[in-house]
Amino acid sequence: MTLAEIAARLACELHGDGACLIRGVATLQNATPGQIAFLANRRYRRHLATTRASAVILAADDLDACPVSALVSENPYLVYARVTALLNPPAPVPNGCHPSAVIEPGCHIDPSAAIGAHCVIGANVTIGAAAVIGPGCVIGCGAAIGDATRLTANVSIGDGVSIGRRCLVQPGAVIGSDGFGYAQDKAAWVKVPQLGGVVVGDDVEIGANTTIDRGALEDTVIEDGVILDNQIQIAHNVRIGAHTAIAGATAIAGSTRIGKRCQIGGAVGIVGHLEIVDDVYITAMSLVTGNIRRPGLYSSGTPLADNKEWRRNAARFGQLDDMARRLKALEKKLEDN
Amino acid sequence: MTLAEIAARLACELHGDGACLIRGVATLQNATPGQIAFLANRRYRRHLATTRASAVILAADDLDACPVSALVSENPYLVYARVTALLNPPAPVPNGCHPSAVIEPGCHIDPSAAIGAHCVIGANVTIGAAAVIGPGCVIGCGAAIGDATRLTANVSIGDGVSIGRRCLVQPGAVIGSDGFGYAQDKAAWVKVPQLGGVVVGDDVEIGANTTIDRGALEDTVIEDGVILDNQIQIAHNVRIGAHTAIAGATAIAGSTRIGKRCQIGGAVGIVGHLEIVDDVYITAMSLVTGNIRRPGLYSSGTPLADNKEWRRNAARFGQLDDMARRLKALEKKLEDN
Amino acid sequence: MTLAEIAARLACELHGDGACLIRGVATLQNATPGQIAFLANRRYRRHLATTRASAVILAADDLDACPVSALVSENPYLVYARVTALLNPPAPVPNGCHPSAVIEPGCHIDPSAAIGAHCVIGANVTIGAAAVIGPGCVIGCGAAIGDATRLTANVSIGDGVSIGRRCLVQPGAVIGSDGFGYAQDKAAWVKVPQLGGVVVGDDVEIGANTTIDRGALEDTVIEDGVILDNQIQIAHNVRIGAHTAIAGATAIAGSTRIGKRCQIGGAVGIVGHLEIVDDVYITAMSLVTGNIRRPGLYSSGTPLADNKEWRRNAARFGQLDDMARRLKALEKKLEDN
Repeated sequence: MTLAEIAARLACELHGDGACLIRGVATLQNATPGQIAFLANRRYRRHLATTRASAVILAADDLDACPVSALVSENPYLVYARVTALLNPPAPVPNGCHPSAVIEPGCHIDPSAAIGAHCVIGANVTIGAAAVIGPGCVIGCGAAIGDATRLTANVSIGDGVSIGRRCLVQPGAVIGSDGFGYAQDKAAWVKVPQLGGVVVGDDVEIGANTTIDRGALEDTVIEDGVILDNQIQIAHNVRIGAHTAIAGATAIAGSTRIGKRCQIGGAVGIVGHLEIVDDVYITAMSLVTGNIRRPGLYSSGTPLADNKEWRRNAARFGQLDDMARRLKALEKKLEDN
Repeated sequence: MTLAEIAARLACELHGDGACLIRGVATLQNATPGQIAFLANRRYRRHLATTRASAVILAADDLDACPVSALVSENPYLVYARVTALLNPPAPVPNGCHPSAVIEPGCHIDPSAAIGAHCVIGANVTIGAAAVIGPGCVIGCGAAIGDATRLTANVSIGDGVSIGRRCLVQPGAVIGSDGFGYAQDKAAWVKVPQLGGVVVGDDVEIGANTTIDRGALEDTVIEDGVILDNQIQIAHNVRIGAHTAIAGATAIAGSTRIGKRCQIGGAVGIVGHLEIVDDVYITAMSLVTGNIRRPGLYSSGTPLADNKEWRRNAARFGQLDDMARRLKALEKKLEDN
Repeated sequence: MTLAEIAARLACELHGDGACLIRGVATLQNATPGQIAFLANRRYRRHLATTRASAVILAADDLDACPVSALVSENPYLVYARVTALLNPPAPVPNGCHPSAVIEPGCHIDPSAAIGAHCVIGANVTIGAAAVIGPGCVIGCGAAIGDATRLTANVSIGDGVSIGRRCLVQPGAVIGSDGFGYAQDKAAWVKVPQLGGVVVGDDVEIGANTTIDRGALEDTVIEDGVILDNQIQIAHNVRIGAHTAIAGATAIAGSTRIGKRCQIGGAVGIVGHLEIVDDVYITAMSLVTGNIRRPGLYSSGTPLADNKEWRRNAARFGQLDDMARRLKALEKKLEDN
C-alpha cells in the first residue's frame, strides 16, 4: 500500500513521498525502509531524528523534526492502530466443528462459526455467525456467543452466560463462575445459590485469566465496549459501564457499579456495594472504599522509597494522630502567649 | 411451596398469608408476586415499602415497615440462602464417564461419579461417590477426590493432591502446582523439589483461577469449611484454619499459618512464615508483615483522595520522620522557655 | 545413599557417621531416623536440639548445637535443594504423542518428546528433545518449545511464542495473550493489533495462572534463569533481566524493563514505561511509579495496625500537607521571637 493510499483511507495529512510503498509497521528505533513508524509518546521523541522508517505518523508539532515522510494526525496513536490493522488483516479461520469437539444436543451453531479441537459445548448453546471458539474452551448449557466473537483458548464459560458480538476473550478467562456468596450459620458458611447470569455486551475484550462471577439473583453486567486486561476479578452483580477500561490485576467486589468511560489503573481494589460515576480515573494500586460521586482522577497509597528511609517514615504513620494533636496544642500555646 | 411450609422448614416466624404460594426468590426491587425477597443489608431498606414481592424475609426490627407477608428471623441472610436452595435444587448430573475422557490405569472411580468430556485422569486416582469432574479437568496421578465434590471445568489438580467431601472448585483453579522454592547458587536459582502435597478438607469452596501450591516437604493444608474466592494465591506449606473466608485476589506467602474463623478481605497480602491466630479480620488490600497474636480487625493503607490533594500529602509522607523530630524539638523549645 | 557419599557429591564438610544411610529429606521437626534435615532459617533453630533426623545440613555456626551427624556448608539451603533432587529424581515420562492429542500439519516434534492427552498443537510448531507437554495444553501455530522444557497441564501458548530449554511452566499459565493496547476514538476503544511475540529464555520457571502478553510490534522478553511465581501479570513489551525472581500476584505494566538479578516481592505493582536497573529488591505490595536507577531495597505502603487506631491515623494522612505547613509556620514564629 502506498503512503498516499494510507493517508487517504485514514484521513491524514500527507507530507513527503506519497508513492512510497509501506509494507509494515515498526517502532521508531527499529523500523527499516519500507516500514512506517509512529510517535505518540513524548518519551520516544529522541528516536525521531535517527529513524530509518520510510514514514512516521505524528502530531503536527513534531512535523518539523521529522527527517522522513510523515502522516500528520491529531491522534497519531489511533492512526497507528488503524494502519497496523490495515496492513495485518487477521488470518482467516476455517469454519466448522473440529471432529474432536464435543457438542451436546440442542445447540444452534451458525455454519460460518468455527469450533476448535477439544472444545466442550453444553446443551442448548447458541453460537453466532463467524464466531470462533478456540481449542480447549468449555461452554456451559444455554450460553450464547454473539456473531464474530472469539474465545481464544482454554476459556471457561458458565451455564446461561451471554456474550455479545465482536468480543475477544483471551486464554484462561472464566466467565460465569459462582459468586462468592455465603451466609453464616454460627461458624459454618452456608452457600447462597448463585442463580444470576453474566451479560457481556458487544465489542468487549476480556483479558487472560480474568474472572467474572455470575450474579446471585440478577446478572453481572459488562456493557458495550468495555476493555478488561488480564487477571481482573469481577465479583457477582457488578455492573461496568460502556467503554470503561480496566488494567490488569484489578479486583472489584460484589454489587459495585462503575460508570461509563472510566479508566481504572492496574491492581486497583474496589470494595463492594459502591457507586462510581461516569468518567472517573483511578491510578494504579489505589483502594476505593467509598462512593465516587464526581468525575476526576483519584489515588491512594504512599510513594516508593529506599527501604531504610521508608521504615523511618512508615513507623511515624502510626503516630500521625498523636502528632496532629500535639501540633494543635503547640499552636494554641503560642496563640495564648 | 407455601409460605407456611417454608416458615416451618426454616423455623421462621410467619406474619401474614401462610397459604401464599412462593415460586422463587428475588431482590426487593425486582421481585414480582409469587416471589419472596429479603432484607439483610440496611443499604437496601428503602426498597421495602415499594416491593412487589409476596413476602419478605427480614429481622424483627423491620417487620413494622413491611407492606407484605413476612418471615422473621434473627439471620435473614441465612434464611434467604436456605430458601433459595430449597426452591432451586441443583440439576442432576448423569453419572458415568464421558467417552472422550482419558482415564489412566489403576483408578478407583465410584460408579455414581460423573467424569466430563475431555477430562484427563492420571493413574491411581480415587474419585468418590456422586463426585462430578467437569469438562476439561486434569487430575494428576494418585490424587483423591472425595464424595460429592465437584470440579466445574478446566480445573488442574496435581499429583497426589487430596480433596475432601462436598467441595466445590470453580473453573481454572489450580491445586497442587509446585511451590516457589529456590536456593541461590551465585546468580543462578536452583529449584528445590516440591515433594509435599495439598490436603483440602471437607466443605471447602475454591474460586475461579485460584492457585494453591503443594508443600516443599510437608503438605499445604486447607481445613474444613474454608471458603476461598477467585484468584487467590496460596503458597507452599500455608495452613488455613477451618471456616476461614478469604476474598478475591488475596496472596499468602509460604509457610504462613492462618487461624480458624478468620475473614480476610480482598487483595490482601500476607508475607511468609507468619502466625495469625483465630478470629482475625483484615480489611481489603492490607499488607500483613508480622504475626497477629490477638483476634480483632486490622488494616493498612491510606484513604482514596482526589489525585492533586493526594500528591501533596503523599509527598509529605517521605518527610514524616523529619516532621516528627521537628515537632518534638518545638515542644522542647517551648518547654524550656 | 550414605551420608559420606552425599557429603562428597555436594562438597560439604562431614561431621559424624559417614556410613549412615539416608533415604529421604524432612524438616527438623518431623524428620525420623534415616532422614536428613536442614537448618537454613534462624526461625527454626529451636527445633535443632530435639530433631530425630539422622543428620542435619547446617552452617558452621550451628554445628555445636547439633545433636546428630551434620553436613556443614556455607549455603545449607542450596545443599538441601541438591540433596532433595539427588534423592528424588523425577519420574520418567513416556515419550510419544497420546492418541487423543490433536497435532496440526507441519510440526517438528522430537521423537523423545511427550505430548499429553487432549493437547492441541497448532501448525508448524517445533517441540524439542525430551520436552513434555502435559494434558490439556494448547500451543499456537508456529510456537517453539525448547529441549527438556515441561508444560505441566492446561497451559496456553500463543502463536509464534518461543520458549527456551529446561523451562518449567505450571498449570493454567498463559504465554502470548494479546497485549492490552488500544487507541481512543472519542469514547470508543480501537484495538491495536498485537503483532509481537514472547521470547522466554532457558531455565525459566513460570508459575500457575501467570500471564505474559505478546508485544505490540516487538517481543516481550523473559531472559534466562528468571523465576516467576503464580498469578503474575506481565504486560506487552516488558523485558525481565536474567536471574530475576518475582513473587506471586505481582503485576508489571507495558514496556517496563527490569534488570538482572532483581528480587521483587509478592503483589508488587510496577507501572509502564519504566527502567529498573540490575540488583533491585522490592518489598511485598510496593507500588513502583518511577525509574529505579540504583541497586537497593525499596518499599512503599503503611504498616498494619488495629483498625481503630489505623482509622485515626489514616484520617490524618489527608491533612499531612497542611500539618507540614503549620509546623513550618510555628518554627518560623519561634525563630522570629
